[in-house]
Amino acid sequence: MSGPQHMNPTVGRYVQMDEVDWVDFPETLSSGGIRWKLLNVSPEMGAWTAIFDCPKGSSFASHVHIGPGEYFLTRGRMEVRGGVDDGGDTAVAPGYGYEPCQALHSKTFFPEDSEFYMTFLGPLNFVGEDGETVALVSWNVVQDAWEASRG
Amino acid sequence: MSGPQHMNPTVGRYVQMDEVDWVDFPETLSSGGIRWKLLNVSPEMGAWTAIFDCPKGSSFASHVHIGPGEYFLTRGRMEVRGGVDDGGDTAVAPGYGYEPCQALHSKTFFPEDSEFYMTFLGPLNFVGEDGETVALVSWNVVQDAWEASRG
Amino acid sequence: MSGPQHMNPTVGRYVQMDEVDWVDFPETLSSGGIRWKLLNVSPEMGAWTAIFDCPKGSSFASHVHIGPGEYFLTRGRMEVRGGVDDGGDTAVAPGYGYEPCQALHSKTFFPEDSEFYMTFLGPLNFVGEDGETVALVSWNVVQDAWEASRG
Amino acid sequence: MSGPQHMNPTVGRYVQMDEVDWVDFPETLSSGGIRWKLLNVSPEMGAWTAIFDCPKGSSFASHVHIGPGEYFLTRGRMEVRGGVDDGGDTAVAPGYGYEPCQALHSKTFFPEDSEFYMTFLGPLNFVGEDGETVALVSWNVVQDAWEASRG
Repeated sequence: MSGPQHMNPTVGRYVQMDEVDWVDFPETLSSGGIRWKLLNVSPEMGAWTAIFDCPKGSSFASHVHIGPGEYFLTRGRMEVRGGVDDGGDTAVAPGYGYEPCQALHSKTFFPEDSEFYMTFLGPLNFVGEDGETVALVSWNVVQDAWEASRG
Repeated sequence: MSGPQHMNPTVGRYVQMDEVDWVDFPETLSSGGIRWKLLNVSPEMGAWTAIFDCPKGSSFASHVHIGPGEYFLTRGRMEVRGGVDDGGDTAVAPGYGYEPCQALHSKTFFPEDSEFYMTFLGPLNFVGEDGETVALVSWNVVQDAWEASRG
Repeated sequence: MSGPQHMNPTVGRYVQMDEVDWVDFPETLSSGGIRWKLLNVSPEMGAWTAIFDCPKGSSFASHVHIGPGEYFLTRGRMEVRGGVDDGGDTAVAPGYGYEPCQALHSKTFFPEDSEFYMTFLGPLNFVGEDGETVALVSWNVVQDAWEASRG
Repeated sequence: MSGPQHMNPTVGRYVQMDEVDWVDFPETLSSGGIRWKLLNVSPEMGAWTAIFDCPKGSSFASHVHIGPGEYFLTRGRMEVRGGVDDGGDTAVAPGYGYEPCQALHSKTFFPEDSEFYMTFLGPLNFVGEDGETVALVSWNVVQDAWEASRG
């Protein structure tokens, strides 16, 4: 009902998204009040899916996509890899983006109130200034954080 | 520019979704006027991503998901695997669903005007009454259909 | 014990390969006495792994790899996609090959007694002369065939 | 010619394994003289494939499999996750093993001269005593190490 059902790889699952409350995304990995809902984890492949609510001025800390990720920006504006002025992309809703395996997102910034849905294969590797791993956010870390936040 | 850029697996791509026109989805695979936009193909894994516009009363023909698929219903209502009254799911926007590898969707029906975004790993196997393959819609078939429809 | 243990995606499994008997591979899909051992199925992704024993003169029927496959030829010689004289590859043990998603193997032929191990993502689509699907061999078909052959 | 050809996801590749020389595997990640040959990288998924030559008494440093991995032990004996006496597996050639996503291999030890072939989805996360990342060995790190060692 609430949250991912995932340990049987051959059974479908459904989440009524507006019946799940937004939860604060960890402040160690973001700033500006980003909230999220975890929709699925797929433990065999290490894939996961979530939706994010990003207020104007919020951002994610620097991270590397360990596998490909695909986003659907449903509302607002998202500057990826520095935005289009800096060699990256600036997504404007409704926008779709494919971020390849090993893409470095040194700063993902939201100049407006925004919302996006994203599917991930593999973890996010949050990195420090020298590229060192600060947090390796794999499907099980994602799920543990989600379950902890829901009490 | 418009449509999938995909032959370099290490480069990101972006689609401004509202600048791409809707195209009729093949009538051999659907009825009732379904339209779509192809957003991505990933030739290495055989994955692909699209968004579908489904008028009230439209449906997809019977098919099997050869790999897992994830949908985000953004508008309307979608009856999957017969809908909730028949042992399946009835998604109501905003709704998320995970359809497992080998899921049989004997009829996917839209009782209201609806729209959904979906990521697919592997092809859709459209099947006849005895389960025989009528059309195996793999990433390259998807892309060929998309390119043909755009002239 | 012997054969795939697979319904829990987070648990490892081990197969002592020389304690599993060879079984005839279906004659509808091969000729010349090919035998096999199924080692794993991964139901979430639709992946599977097997080893094949291929006598001199044996061959597989025409098929398309629906996802990428990787082989390790441990003994003998395997002509893939017509062999090197016909634009394909001729593998000689020890040889490794990557067959991409949608690769058509119109005939895989063994001019010597051979053995190879292979990992598959997604099904094999065995096709007739006009490319029509004769048998779509997905992980569950593979597993059912394996279990049936073991009584 | 020698080594992975990989930037076109739709083209097959072949490696004549006995024409590629063994190369020392990094001593920071192993001890006892392990050597390897890189056979493939798949940049879209972040997958890679290699074969390892492991002298008696050699071992790999502690690591986590970020995605599933499958090995085929062709020669010798390999103690995984402490070996069978300690709750893990002891593989004896010919042996097949599936290591799930997030499997922790605190020590992989070879009590005899051994050889194994392995396919990996995603990186290996080599970890220190507190689980902190020491080296995140993704497909591009693997490839850079391989190319550097070949001069």
